[in-house]
Amino acid sequence: MAQYPKKVWLNGEILEAEAARISVFDRGFLFGDGIYEVMARIGGRFFYEQAHLKRLDQCLQKINLTFDIRILTKEVPKLLRAVDLVDSDCLLYIQVSRGVAPRQHAFPHNSRPTAMMYATPKTFPDINSINASVITMPEFRWSRCDIKSTSLLGNVIANEQAVQQGCYETLFVRNDMVTEASHCNVFFIKDKTVYTHPANEYILDGITRQVVLGLCKELHIEVREEAVSKQGLVQMDEAFLTGTSTQIASVKQIDGHSYYEGNEIGEITKKLQQAFSNLKKE
Amino acid sequence: MAQYPKKVWLNGEILEAEAARISVFDRGFLFGDGIYEVMARIGGRFFYEQAHLKRLDQCLQKINLTFDIRILTKEVPKLLRAVDLVDSDCLLYIQVSRGVAPRQHAFPHNSRPTAMMYATPKTFPDINSINASVITMPEFRWSRCDIKSTSLLGNVIANEQAVQQGCYETLFVRNDMVTEASHCNVFFIKDKTVYTHPANEYILDGITRQVVLGLCKELHIEVREEAVSKQGLVQMDEAFLTGTSTQIASVKQIDGHSYYEGNEIGEITKKLQQAFSNLKKE
Repeated sequence: MAQYPKKVWLNGEILEAEAARISVFDRGFLFGDGIYEVMARIGGRFFYEQAHLKRLDQCLQKINLTFDIRILTKEVPKLLRAVDLVDSDCLLYIQVSRGVAPRQHAFPHNSRPTAMMYATPKTFPDINSINASVITMPEFRWSRCDIKSTSLLGNVIANEQAVQQGCYETLFVRNDMVTEASHCNVFFIKDKTVYTHPANEYILDGITRQVVLGLCKELHIEVREEAVSKQGLVQMDEAFLTGTSTQIASVKQIDGHSYYEGNEIGEITKKLQQAFSNLKKE
Repeated sequence: MAQYPKKVWLNGEILEAEAARISVFDRGFLFGDGIYEVMARIGGRFFYEQAHLKRLDQCLQKINLTFDIRILTKEVPKLLRAVDLVDSDCLLYIQVSRGVAPRQHAFPHNSRPTAMMYATPKTFPDINSINASVITMPEFRWSRCDIKSTSLLGNVIANEQAVQQGCYETLFVRNDMVTEASHCNVFFIKDKTVYTHPANEYILDGITRQVVLGLCKELHIEVREEAVSKQGLVQMDEAFLTGTSTQIASVKQIDGHSYYEGNEIGEITKKLQQAFSNLKKE
């Protein structure tokens, strides 16, 4: 189960979690009008920090939210010290909303963005031992999934469906093609070739997704950034999920179709998990 | 410009607007995981109160958010007295989120919903004098627009586009058909027949939309709940927007195509505006 952090950094102050409060007129609360980011801290450094920060900055720009993310980065060490996580593996959550203003849809003039971050301890196993069962669901989210926004009700509903069925994730199917999961990207392998949905507006271009694509190149594994159809799922040899917190998790079952017997893990999945694990130790 | 209310009712307490604060771990803030409703109070009573409350209740059910809305309804008189609006025309805003919990997508167990409401003074003219210019935009929101959720970033971005172009609203075009606007429904008239998108998952079934459909019946105006295509817009004779706050607003121009010369208003639009105005006085 998720836990509250000990402290929260909110607009420049480090507060007890219970004391971290915002106005009900914050547009993050009224409109889901904000962007978030999650970074993993492993072995005393943030894993692909610059890629995460670049994406945060780009997503803020995509919704025309003017905010200097250096305000956050220079405060992270102070936050980590305050919660005693400088040398411990943890997840850093960052959220920036368009700030507080009387409610009206169009952007307010001169509102000051609300920025919030917190870190929670997290153990990153060498190799993710989750062997995930997943379900599929027709895509019903917006068509700007490339924006890591806090208007997440669609993702929430989809993930809840998975959990209700004892599964780890829900894969979305748009126009008959598998796009991504509610908080992960998804990859498939057929005849030693890796397939994943291209990074367009239908998916979030995950940092771990990008890292895995890089590893495939290094390992001379053929990659096609092409979507797999829902019908094609049963013809795949392997499947795995990627995400900052999930890392690389093998998928054993989709909608009742099993890829493996028992807790077997496919050859390419295993190779990528091992290479990813080595990356973290670099 | 929108204004802050004097007071806010929040989880049973009536607070100064500045003091109405919620946890940063409220799922309304982290996930846009909530439902809202807006009601107009005109001449000392809420206009179609039961229809609004029923929709609020239904939307909460659609996202499996268990909350007894009678908690709100019995407190409304107290809130109105506190802000001295019992006998004044006003808008009542209601929002219910899934409450406070450590961040994870799936629904938390045992979180207490966060409920908030406030009223702001509002003048409802007999007949809305806005003669709206609107733009169109390809639909990019989710396909559960029937849920009045606070994950509204798509609506916000669309409305901002309209405002940037000096327009009142943005009409969404899904699969070449006009669905609705960012916070209004839209109607068209051709050869004295009224057209509006059917109330499916692509639009919010507005209460004012329902009232207008009822008025058409009473006035023996033919109605077809059929969408109009984007190309068909220029062939229409009249167009108008409906909404709780907008009431019935004539549309004079869509994407630069003018329906009228000067501030003319179409015959059927005018007839419906007059009938709507009479309803408010009943």
